[in-house]
Amino acid sequence: MNEEETPIQWIEDIDKIAALISFTYRSVQKHFAKELALYHIGWGHFSILMSLYRQEGRSQDSLAQSRGFDKTMIAKSILKLEKEGIVYRITDPEDKRIKRLYLTEKGRKLKPEIRKIGFEMNSLLLKGFDSDELPSAIEIVRKIALNAAQL
Amino acid sequence: MNEEETPIQWIEDIDKIAALISFTYRSVQKHFAKELALYHIGWGHFSILMSLYRQEGRSQDSLAQSRGFDKTMIAKSILKLEKEGIVYRITDPEDKRIKRLYLTEKGRKLKPEIRKIGFEMNSLLLKGFDSDELPSAIEIVRKIALNAAQL
Repeated sequence: MNEEETPIQWIEDIDKIAALISFTYRSVQKHFAKELALYHIGWGHFSILMSLYRQEGRSQDSLAQSRGFDKTMIAKSILKLEKEGIVYRITDPEDKRIKRLYLTEKGRKLKPEIRKIGFEMNSLLLKGFDSDELPSAIEIVRKIALNAAQL
Repeated sequence: MNEEETPIQWIEDIDKIAALISFTYRSVQKHFAKELALYHIGWGHFSILMSLYRQEGRSQDSLAQSRGFDKTMIAKSILKLEKEGIVYRITDPEDKRIKRLYLTEKGRKLKPEIRKIGFEMNSLLLKGFDSDELPSAIEIVRKIALNAAQL
C-alpha cells in the first residue's frame, strides 16, 4: 500500500475534472483561511464581498442565484458581515420583500486588501502559465463554469 | 442597476480563475446534494468515498493531506460514514496511532452508484468539449490543481 501518496502523485494520476476542481477549491479555501481570519471573515464572506466590490445594491436572492451560493449559507454569511459592520441591508422602496446589500465605510475601506487576496489567489493558481497559454486556460475554465451554470 | 444578472452574464464577464472555479464547485455541490442525500451522504462524504474506491486502507491523515481535506471536516465525515455502516476503521498493528479506512460490504455495494454520480459530474462539466479539446482541458485544470497543491 502506498501510504505516502502525495497530492502531486494523485493529481498527476487522475483525469477527473470534478475531482481536480474540488481539490483546487479546497486547497485555496484552506490556504487563505488564516489570511481571511485577520478580517474576521471566512471563505463564503470573501466571495460575497468580492461580488459586492463588483456591484453594490444587489439583493441577497439575486446574488445567491447568480453566484451559485446556497440560500441558507448566504443568509448566515450576510448576518455575520452585518455584525462585523462590513455590509448593511436596505429594504427596496419599490418591493419591500427585497433587501439590497451595500458596503459600509469599513467595508469599502477593506476593498484594496480583500481584492489583493483575490489577486493573489488568481496569480498563484495560474503560476507557470505563459502569456500564450493564459487566455485559453481562462476560456477553458470559463467553459466548464458555463456548464456548471446549466446544472 | 442590473438586478437580473444571470450566472451566465457574470461568468462571461469575469476572468478570475479562482471565482470561476469556486462557482463551478458550488454549483456541482448544490446540484448533486439531492442525489447524494438518497445515500444519506453529503459532498464531503462523496469525495472520501471516491478516494476509498481508488484505494482502501489509507489512513485518515494521509487522505486529508493528499486530498486537501480539512482535518476536522474529514474526522466528522468519517464518523458519519461509520454510523451509516459504509466505512470502518482498523488500528494499524505496526503503529497504533494510525487508523486505516476500509469499506464495509454496504460501502462496496454502493460503489457503482457512487461512481456513476462522479461520472455524471465529469461529463456534465465537460459537455461541449470535443475530443480534440478534451485532453488539453484536463491538462490545464490539472496544472491549476498542481499549483493549488503547492499552496
